[in-house]
Amino acid sequence: MLETISAFEADRLLQSALAEDIGMGDITSISTVAPDRQISGRYIAKEAGVLCGLALVARAFALLDPAIAFAPLAEDGDPIAKGDVIATVSGNARAILMGERVGLNLLQHMSGVATQTARAVAAVAGTGAKIVDTRKTTPGLRALDKYAVRAGGGGNHRFGLFDGVLIKDNHIVAAGGIAAAVAAARKRAPHSLKVEVEVETLEQLREALNAGADIVMLDNMPLDMMREAVRCVHGRALVEASGNMGDKTDAELRAVAETGVDLISIGALTHSVRALDISLKFS
Amino acid sequence: MLETISAFEADRLLQSALAEDIGMGDITSISTVAPDRQISGRYIAKEAGVLCGLALVARAFALLDPAIAFAPLAEDGDPIAKGDVIATVSGNARAILMGERVGLNLLQHMSGVATQTARAVAAVAGTGAKIVDTRKTTPGLRALDKYAVRAGGGGNHRFGLFDGVLIKDNHIVAAGGIAAAVAAARKRAPHSLKVEVEVETLEQLREALNAGADIVMLDNMPLDMMREAVRCVHGRALVEASGNMGDKTDAELRAVAETGVDLISIGALTHSVRALDISLKFS
Amino acid sequence: MLETISAFEADRLLQSALAEDIGMGDITSISTVAPDRQISGRYIAKEAGVLCGLALVARAFALLDPAIAFAPLAEDGDPIAKGDVIATVSGNARAILMGERVGLNLLQHMSGVATQTARAVAAVAGTGAKIVDTRKTTPGLRALDKYAVRAGGGGNHRFGLFDGVLIKDNHIVAAGGIAAAVAAARKRAPHSLKVEVEVETLEQLREALNAGADIVMLDNMPLDMMREAVRCVHGRALVEASGNMGDKTDAELRAVAETGVDLISIGALTHSVRALDISLKFS
Amino acid sequence: MLETISAFEADRLLQSALAEDIGMGDITSISTVAPDRQISGRYIAKEAGVLCGLALVARAFALLDPAIAFAPLAEDGDPIAKGDVIATVSGNARAILMGERVGLNLLQHMSGVATQTARAVAAVAGTGAKIVDTRKTTPGLRALDKYAVRAGGGGNHRFGLFDGVLIKDNHIVAAGGIAAAVAAARKRAPHSLKVEVEVETLEQLREALNAGADIVMLDNMPLDMMREAVRCVHGRALVEASGNMGDKTDAELRAVAETGVDLISIGALTHSVRALDISLKFS
Amino acid sequence: MLETISAFEADRLLQSALAEDIGMGDITSISTVAPDRQISGRYIAKEAGVLCGLALVARAFALLDPAIAFAPLAEDGDPIAKGDVIATVSGNARAILMGERVGLNLLQHMSGVATQTARAVAAVAGTGAKIVDTRKTTPGLRALDKYAVRAGGGGNHRFGLFDGVLIKDNHIVAAGGIAAAVAAARKRAPHSLKVEVEVETLEQLREALNAGADIVMLDNMPLDMMREAVRCVHGRALVEASGNMGDKTDAELRAVAETGVDLISIGALTHSVRALDISLKFS
Amino acid sequence: MLETISAFEADRLLQSALAEDIGMGDITSISTVAPDRQISGRYIAKEAGVLCGLALVARAFALLDPAIAFAPLAEDGDPIAKGDVIATVSGNARAILMGERVGLNLLQHMSGVATQTARAVAAVAGTGAKIVDTRKTTPGLRALDKYAVRAGGGGNHRFGLFDGVLIKDNHIVAAGGIAAAVAAARKRAPHSLKVEVEVETLEQLREALNAGADIVMLDNMPLDMMREAVRCVHGRALVEASGNMGDKTDAELRAVAETGVDLISIGALTHSVRALDISLKFS
Repeated sequence: MLETISAFEADRLLQSALAEDIGMGDITSISTVAPDRQISGRYIAKEAGVLCGLALVARAFALLDPAIAFAPLAEDGDPIAKGDVIATVSGNARAILMGERVGLNLLQHMSGVATQTARAVAAVAGTGAKIVDTRKTTPGLRALDKYAVRAGGGGNHRFGLFDGVLIKDNHIVAAGGIAAAVAAARKRAPHSLKVEVEVETLEQLREALNAGADIVMLDNMPLDMMREAVRCVHGRALVEASGNMGDKTDAELRAVAETGVDLISIGALTHSVRALDISLKFS
Repeated sequence: MLETISAFEADRLLQSALAEDIGMGDITSISTVAPDRQISGRYIAKEAGVLCGLALVARAFALLDPAIAFAPLAEDGDPIAKGDVIATVSGNARAILMGERVGLNLLQHMSGVATQTARAVAAVAGTGAKIVDTRKTTPGLRALDKYAVRAGGGGNHRFGLFDGVLIKDNHIVAAGGIAAAVAAARKRAPHSLKVEVEVETLEQLREALNAGADIVMLDNMPLDMMREAVRCVHGRALVEASGNMGDKTDAELRAVAETGVDLISIGALTHSVRALDISLKFS
Repeated sequence: MLETISAFEADRLLQSALAEDIGMGDITSISTVAPDRQISGRYIAKEAGVLCGLALVARAFALLDPAIAFAPLAEDGDPIAKGDVIATVSGNARAILMGERVGLNLLQHMSGVATQTARAVAAVAGTGAKIVDTRKTTPGLRALDKYAVRAGGGGNHRFGLFDGVLIKDNHIVAAGGIAAAVAAARKRAPHSLKVEVEVETLEQLREALNAGADIVMLDNMPLDMMREAVRCVHGRALVEASGNMGDKTDAELRAVAETGVDLISIGALTHSVRALDISLKFS
Repeated sequence: MLETISAFEADRLLQSALAEDIGMGDITSISTVAPDRQISGRYIAKEAGVLCGLALVARAFALLDPAIAFAPLAEDGDPIAKGDVIATVSGNARAILMGERVGLNLLQHMSGVATQTARAVAAVAGTGAKIVDTRKTTPGLRALDKYAVRAGGGGNHRFGLFDGVLIKDNHIVAAGGIAAAVAAARKRAPHSLKVEVEVETLEQLREALNAGADIVMLDNMPLDMMREAVRCVHGRALVEASGNMGDKTDAELRAVAETGVDLISIGALTHSVRALDISLKFS
Repeated sequence: MLETISAFEADRLLQSALAEDIGMGDITSISTVAPDRQISGRYIAKEAGVLCGLALVARAFALLDPAIAFAPLAEDGDPIAKGDVIATVSGNARAILMGERVGLNLLQHMSGVATQTARAVAAVAGTGAKIVDTRKTTPGLRALDKYAVRAGGGGNHRFGLFDGVLIKDNHIVAAGGIAAAVAAARKRAPHSLKVEVEVETLEQLREALNAGADIVMLDNMPLDMMREAVRCVHGRALVEASGNMGDKTDAELRAVAETGVDLISIGALTHSVRALDISLKFS
Repeated sequence: MLETISAFEADRLLQSALAEDIGMGDITSISTVAPDRQISGRYIAKEAGVLCGLALVARAFALLDPAIAFAPLAEDGDPIAKGDVIATVSGNARAILMGERVGLNLLQHMSGVATQTARAVAAVAGTGAKIVDTRKTTPGLRALDKYAVRAGGGGNHRFGLFDGVLIKDNHIVAAGGIAAAVAAARKRAPHSLKVEVEVETLEQLREALNAGADIVMLDNMPLDMMREAVRCVHGRALVEASGNMGDKTDAELRAVAETGVDLISIGALTHSVRALDISLKFS
């Protein structure tokens, strides 16, 4: 299905969303629409953005009635303009009316994520910085959220607690210092994972580098300190800027990028999503 | 658990969210934190808003370790100010670090919904209009989204296709007119459900009223037409205003309310959520 | 699938029923029937009734072997006579023998519900009363039971606690009276739902009407009182007769209908089901 | 939990039944009953019968609120008289009202099965015949139905296709005769299972005995032929009488038993259940 | 699917195994392989053995991409030699790389079981003894393990606690003796099940026979005692030899068979499996 | 629960294993053992090894009956000798007999994995090489298998396709060379993951190093070539030896370790498990 979710897992998610919406039946359509009535419609962008999620819309319909014809006219990651027709659908009226809302809810959400990611990516274009997401995703939709970030041109941070080591304050205190924490992680974690350390000061940064961190996360540092940090690291580790990056203007974000950091992680890409306005117009 | 979700269904949702985040283990904590280490922290509001979802945070921790002590200091629906401590937690460090993110993701999302609902409710305070939600909720989280709308002082529209009749264009065409559609719905739908008809013109409105609609939804009408519609209905049906209500300023929303409509439904309450900034600070 | 259950939910129910019956294999058929042997048979009504559920029989076979040919010769809701052939099946012998019992169990149960519903509907034919079901359904099979009631010509009461307000004794006491209870329901429930009040006396009936109840349920009232109640309501609300209606003879049921009530709800339609005798004869 | 279902599987079944009934909340109780209100009630038999299923009622409440106090006053299999108080419940009003219906639906169904089983058992008392069930159970509830048959004093036939060999017409034809079918079953089936053969004539019976069948099922034989069959078997195999046994009067059933058969299997015990009338009265 | 597992249950098992391996995506393939790249390969035996499980390999691929062409060149139960090509696969490269490991893990495991079963079967060839498995299977894979034993030429003991009575020490003590235990089992167990008793001495054996046991299990008896036991039973019951049979050499196993026992049960067939070496070579 | 599996996921796995074994009940115990009978027993090692999995045994019992007292006398990873009592259990006889097999099956399997891991770890003790597992685990039990490897003193390779980049032949061909493949992985994979390249020749090794691989896997190299490879890498990357390592003697394994490789991955640790002999003796 998508790169981040197998077909059968997407089905499970869609079935669960459809069940939530349909329950024991679409009373209105059952009452007013003949069982064999046909209908057709077009998905139209009501505003500009980056498209993401059409495959899920198609699959939601297929789960309700495999005979529904759904034709995407654009691909995930494509920029779309207001008024663009992005897909067409035709088939059994009851089934289409039943699946319409779930499909749109996913499409608008994922396109919303892709759109705001693309905006951040554009803001730092030309610098070496890469925009990445965080674990601040919608519960149950992480695979979709992470996919949408990629559709918007961003990159993914670790998917969860299991596929990356990220040492924070508590771990440092518990382990008895940065060096001890990094050493412990090296010893216990699968060797396929890099070790990242969150630092708030240049002193901590130096400790992390000495401890052999593969990545350092600069938490809420002012621009000057960031620049200094990048200098200090001097290529020995990847440098990630973090901390309320979602509240910054494009110019501010660019300024962060221009400090020379490799990565900028933004929780708001996925925790505060404005749905992209897309509607299904029937003919 | 919450009024809209049984304890065991909340557990299923939380387990699924926890599994998504934890996978085969919190590699960092396992590596750096001793199995029996204790930790404690406070949940602090980083901005003002309306609180919602603490019960889920508590339950997420309980699923990982029943011995964790979680103490809420406020209730769902309570207004909170920047800096407020809204809950405390203490217990096994590994378990708390494992459950922290899932709990926060839900708490910030639901508090975000409650907060923006409360803003809309405040905008129409003193008029007779009630702010209600729509079916444009996050897939998989409808019960939580609808609950959060209530916590913010709003009301719920139907939960899905199954618990309300809402006759739109397609149904009217398929049934052969408004009167036929309403009659069909009365005949087939459970008698416990009201029949609502979406109208775009005053002529359609009159037809709907003549057909005996219990509720009329005014779709994207200008203020003048709304006022006229309210006059025309004259108490014979509930009147709901709808259509991009989420894009309106507070003053515009109040103007809608002052036309005399009974209900204003706003999709953005749940489809475009800005997470409320809340963080867990360890001591 | 059926109007009350999505295809994937019907599949889940069927898979669970098949697993319950098949477990780790149909030992007898595996031992005695060659893997590629073909078989064909006819479903024959052993008594008269109303048919319901063939789609599930078809789907049970399809889940075991998509190559099985199943041809329905009648539709849900059709009256069938003793000796009628209502469907044919042919295909792999092992798969058909494996799925036979689960399909028949559902078909006989649902046809049983439809048959006894049709009997009650016939008893009140020509009066204005509608026969409806209750929440006294087989646990796990509510969607099927409610569908079968419709196939038998009856109507559905609310599907569960979520899609209708039904105020009983306890709610009235807890709320502090009928008026308070109705007002509270109006305030909290989605506006798409009607408010029904259960009453045992004419005095309670009047209170309910004054409180603005949309529906009144007359609980176990004698015929005279029912008639009086209908007069008293005078079209201001729907009137539902309830209470051991399943124990009544056809004539008694008709007498209830002739009091002028709008609805008669009968728990026994679904809580005490006599399976309709249908068998699969192999040729 | 019960002998036929583990605690966690009973929970799954109950959660599913509760979800079916409660959906997104008991709108009525939420609206009218204060969250902390307490209530208490008594379960009263409205007619005589055999009790079965209280443990599930108790567990349904516990799943909604572990603080609810439920006290059974009788045990599964106990005969109960009209008016008997069979259990009491007290606790949070909302939770009790939410779980009431699911518990009663199960209790009335299972007590219905136990009651009609006990009637058949009484009819053959003193003969050597044992009343047993079939695979004609309610889909999804087989474990409960089979348990209720035992509570009523009956015995269980095989639970499904997996725990017994039952050779019928089709198997015989496919295998090329009774002897071949029995031999094939002996070879392939686990040696822990007996081999049963269904016969319609005395000639088939003799073949089955010669083939070494452990059990013979006499299908729809007249009484005389049954008697002859029992003589013919002469203890070399168990003899089971089968075929519309549910339609027989007590005297007719006794006559079957008196032919000397070991087992009488009755599909109607579980496929045509009349719910036992039990109600929950609040004080 | 297989004789011991329905298609939809095999799907559930495979989806769960695939999810375990794939999680949020095959990062390597997504990064390096174009979405539409095709690939083809051959499954090659790296050592001799008995093949089992190709249908699951085929289905794992089909779940990921129905367009993958998988062609088995041998059947379950076939002996294979080192170097044999046993199947070919071709289709989308990403999907094949994603499903490769899960398919191989199952294929190698099941072929391992079949191979070691075949070895034991060969060791006793020509004697009357049948090699059977036990309940010592891999948790979650019992249906597959039991199927593989059959593919290797062995037979199945009971599948679980539910489809066979096996009376051991504890049951005997609890029931108050062998006779009482056998009688109790006869009374309570479905009559389709045989009653087996585990004995350690010839005295216990005689008691079991007198009690009417259908099967006796000789637990850890020396060869002489086994021979004596077989003589003593003299065809009145099936005789099963048991106890560390997996540790015996082929000659020792044959010696057990030659005592005249009917069955030899070997836990190691399924609890200590050496995977058969099979690899997928891409061209 | 364990570090690699949350309590609720362990429960799901255990419930599924218990259901597989218990089905519709432990017929033998239900028939012969009184419902309230108590029993107690001791887990005894029948051979030496490394213990792993007692927590799952305890939990299996708790799921069946929380009142069962289970006391572990050793911890995961502890070496145990033949005859050691490693745990005691006491409580309801029926529940203990029902849960016994599932617990033992897991305990013996996981202890088997830990034991053979410990043997390999001992073989390379004192060299710098670390023994690690692969993805060749039992389908459905990966979390347990990986945990058991750690209990035996080994380390974990990546858990699945999602938490590590491992570039093999096919990826290299598809990407157009090692350099292109590594670059593509760096670009698309989360930055928390290291990039590993499988090489078969020293030339490929040099290409991988030049491409900036973090880890190189030497596939089936002779000892001399391995030594040369280690020299060539000279600390610029981690070096992993791989290929039929499970077939090697301890001395051969040590020879591999002494070439200076950092890691030795062994599929047989988890794909060919010999269960450790542990039994539950009742008193």
